[in-house]
Amino acid sequence: MAERLRFSPLAREMAAEFAGTMILILFGVGVVAQVVAGGIGDHDSIAWAWGIGVVLGVYVSAAISGGHINPAVTFALAVFNRFSWRKVLPYWFAQTSGAFIAALIVRWNYTEVLAKADPGHTIKTQGVFTTLPGNGTLPVSMWGGFRDQIIGTAILLFVVMALTDLRNLPPLSNLTPVVIGLLVVAIGMAWGTDAGYAINPARDFGPRVAQFITGYGGAWRDQYGDLYFWVPIIGPLIGGVIGAGLYLFLIGRNLPPETKPESKPETKPEYDVQS
Amino acid sequence: MAERLRFSPLAREMAAEFAGTMILILFGVGVVAQVVAGGIGDHDSIAWAWGIGVVLGVYVSAAISGGHINPAVTFALAVFNRFSWRKVLPYWFAQTSGAFIAALIVRWNYTEVLAKADPGHTIKTQGVFTTLPGNGTLPVSMWGGFRDQIIGTAILLFVVMALTDLRNLPPLSNLTPVVIGLLVVAIGMAWGTDAGYAINPARDFGPRVAQFITGYGGAWRDQYGDLYFWVPIIGPLIGGVIGAGLYLFLIGRNLPPETKPESKPETKPEYDVQS
Amino acid sequence: MAERLRFSPLAREMAAEFAGTMILILFGVGVVAQVVAGGIGDHDSIAWAWGIGVVLGVYVSAAISGGHINPAVTFALAVFNRFSWRKVLPYWFAQTSGAFIAALIVRWNYTEVLAKADPGHTIKTQGVFTTLPGNGTLPVSMWGGFRDQIIGTAILLFVVMALTDLRNLPPLSNLTPVVIGLLVVAIGMAWGTDAGYAINPARDFGPRVAQFITGYGGAWRDQYGDLYFWVPIIGPLIGGVIGAGLYLFLIGRNLPPETKPESKPETKPEYDVQS
Amino acid sequence: MAERLRFSPLAREMAAEFAGTMILILFGVGVVAQVVAGGIGDHDSIAWAWGIGVVLGVYVSAAISGGHINPAVTFALAVFNRFSWRKVLPYWFAQTSGAFIAALIVRWNYTEVLAKADPGHTIKTQGVFTTLPGNGTLPVSMWGGFRDQIIGTAILLFVVMALTDLRNLPPLSNLTPVVIGLLVVAIGMAWGTDAGYAINPARDFGPRVAQFITGYGGAWRDQYGDLYFWVPIIGPLIGGVIGAGLYLFLIGRNLPPETKPESKPETKPEYDVQS
Repeated sequence: MAERLRFSPLAREMAAEFAGTMILILFGVGVVAQVVAGGIGDHDSIAWAWGIGVVLGVYVSAAISGGHINPAVTFALAVFNRFSWRKVLPYWFAQTSGAFIAALIVRWNYTEVLAKADPGHTIKTQGVFTTLPGNGTLPVSMWGGFRDQIIGTAILLFVVMALTDLRNLPPLSNLTPVVIGLLVVAIGMAWGTDAGYAINPARDFGPRVAQFITGYGGAWRDQYGDLYFWVPIIGPLIGGVIGAGLYLFLIGRNLPPETKPESKPETKPEYDVQS
Repeated sequence: MAERLRFSPLAREMAAEFAGTMILILFGVGVVAQVVAGGIGDHDSIAWAWGIGVVLGVYVSAAISGGHINPAVTFALAVFNRFSWRKVLPYWFAQTSGAFIAALIVRWNYTEVLAKADPGHTIKTQGVFTTLPGNGTLPVSMWGGFRDQIIGTAILLFVVMALTDLRNLPPLSNLTPVVIGLLVVAIGMAWGTDAGYAINPARDFGPRVAQFITGYGGAWRDQYGDLYFWVPIIGPLIGGVIGAGLYLFLIGRNLPPETKPESKPETKPEYDVQS
Repeated sequence: MAERLRFSPLAREMAAEFAGTMILILFGVGVVAQVVAGGIGDHDSIAWAWGIGVVLGVYVSAAISGGHINPAVTFALAVFNRFSWRKVLPYWFAQTSGAFIAALIVRWNYTEVLAKADPGHTIKTQGVFTTLPGNGTLPVSMWGGFRDQIIGTAILLFVVMALTDLRNLPPLSNLTPVVIGLLVVAIGMAWGTDAGYAINPARDFGPRVAQFITGYGGAWRDQYGDLYFWVPIIGPLIGGVIGAGLYLFLIGRNLPPETKPESKPETKPEYDVQS
Repeated sequence: MAERLRFSPLAREMAAEFAGTMILILFGVGVVAQVVAGGIGDHDSIAWAWGIGVVLGVYVSAAISGGHINPAVTFALAVFNRFSWRKVLPYWFAQTSGAFIAALIVRWNYTEVLAKADPGHTIKTQGVFTTLPGNGTLPVSMWGGFRDQIIGTAILLFVVMALTDLRNLPPLSNLTPVVIGLLVVAIGMAWGTDAGYAINPARDFGPRVAQFITGYGGAWRDQYGDLYFWVPIIGPLIGGVIGAGLYLFLIGRNLPPETKPESKPETKPEYDVQS
């Protein structure tokens, strides 16, 4: 309880983003390895474990860093003056590093089953670590994946802005991370067809570097041979700003400041459909 | 934080209903497209993503509009003097518009996989957007679907009334939307056989218009060739009133006004099975 | 808001138990009909929809009646002086009636798909409404089912007693019904092999009468031809008392009265694993 | 309400750990028996029922004993001065005894289906009770399982420390056990390939003794004939300390003491991503 604070404030925030994103990817890449290489579970397992990974990654980091664990979240908040531009690059670096280390741990732990399922470390198991257009099999082009990543991340940020807007009706009792996790579960179930729902540049780029340096020579390209790695980076950054902006236009700016939940007693339920 | 309020009060509420229903349908129609056209997931994915879509749609809109996101909810509340008749038609328009726009976005994003799974845009993938009796394959008639929609929406409104009745024991900490989402998950798992659990006229009519104008010429008819589009509109409107009325008869009117949770301290758990 | 209270106190409680058990069975029997006769979903759908049915049935009824919706709960609470013996029979009648009416509604709505899946209304779909040893196919005898029902209901009551004991650490914010629902989900996944986890006499007997009067002539017997209907009545009543008693012996009587959560501020989390 | 306290303080804590671990294993081993021997459900059922078992086991025991229900949790807390070394062995004994009794109950209830699925009680159903490298079928060695158990338990303790650190942002309203359960669900889905995610020495050793004395002569060895029983004991003890230590290094020691949630009003949501 009396540990000294050794890190500088920014280093503390970077450590939290590193740890939160690491936890996210330990579950996210872990579950795809289990399903694809281990043959245990199915796509719903993937959707649930990714979503729970978000829940846990946010709980780990939110007290110190705000729990972004996604460069697209950091970027959209900065664009709308809710986060300091000065900290954007440090956050991005911490998030991507956490994802990179987590992917290496998964790569190590699943060495044997990956080698058995795909001895050449080809595109067959490339999707364990990174996303592909149409998940590598459906007839979706690189540009279809780009469109999908913009839309999917717009949905993510639209709802994240709603769930964390104190003038709106967010969950109380520190339970917002659970609902954000449900959001990611549903994105996985409904918006995972065209591009594997990266919706997070760190989620994709960190593991891509990890897989490239551990034997996946084709990591930067998709099943058509095109350079694809930029799609789940640029698409989410664009989509996140669109989604956050649409939230502010349709909902956020219309919330009167006097509806702040701080001024209401907890014992009166905020949610009242019958009005 | 200092954005100006630009919309009129009614326009604010309509924007919220538009946004909430749009979020609902982005997940609801999105997941059926992913399962049916993308071949990813199964019926349980559909039930979960629809339910989570309700959770998120309500969180997005509840602070401003009450979070109906369903014309049958709006109608039943108006019938029982819990909502102004004057706002019913504007709410219906906003809800249906949000569903329509969301369906267009899904239609666009899943263009390639829908074209591959069903090049003629026939009844084979019509169910991605709208409901059919017996989901298009089971031996249920149009009238069977009508019966089912009345019953299913009655169950929805019965429980929604219970979960939002402040004299009852609703969830606190602004978590009612999560339990309403679980309700819709269970309706999908238990009451989705006969008519695809529309239980929401906007959910069905908005996407029906969207699919009609984007190549689904048969959108207004079911697999028997009968005009079916009215069933998931009229059935839910009738059923919702029946369900809400039954709740008020069996439970609501029996709750003494003095049991309002407002007057109880939060630190004492309300729920006490041992009494 | 100003409705008159028309029912007597006991009638109000009976109406609540009727409504709560009806909601439970609308989902519970409904989901089995959808899976078995409609061919939509699998055993996990059954486990989830039953569990959510419990969540919703308790929310509907808990404010007025305590939300037992299970004669084994009512009985065990009475045995341990937590419920009035005078109200046991009225509660049992209300619970069984609610289950009976709900089963009739499911029977009506799924008429066509039940007739298609099993035109003779035989033991093939008997399990839609009522439980069978080994679910009608596994080599479990009537006595194996009896043993299973005692154990399964003992687990149910052991945990329900823990989750509703105000001297313990139950969920706050009126969320105990959600965790009780998770309990029933897990019983369905782990204790549903030998006897279909009735664990509730009303859940089994009400639908059994409903199926008998609507064409299932063999309703009272199992696949071996033995009279089985008493097993999911007597087993749960015995098991519930055993489980509640074990909870009181191992945990309940060891909780000092001074740990009542009422005397603690909500802002201090009760749960502290690090002590 | 006026029961006398009959157990000594340590005996009360041991009874709580016994009961909590018993509940955990009744669901954990129960669900594997249902899936493997009963043929009902799949790996996702196993992940969910294990996770819910953790939720319920913690709720049962947390008020009295802190709800460890896992010797690796007890050990890691002792190493970092959050638990008395004097109570470690009594806790371990109570946890393992609870798991042993629960496994015997499952063994008894599933006698018939286990006998039918695997009359010789061989390695075919050995995994119902205890873990095996690669779940008995994948090409993972004993040392691969050891590595996996260290990593998996490190993840468990890292996140458990975060979720129970009052200076962090844990869930309020006594809902931390639910999120810890989600953590175990996700570990099951993402980290169950190499060694069946024991991550709990009592979970594995208690049922191992139970299965050995009830006919599983090969209980101490894996599919290669090697002595394996020590792996899911030593691996978790090592991994738990690593994970808890990493949490304290990256997050815990960086949390300033003044952010204690006790000093903040509940009505202000703690979680604020927009800062």
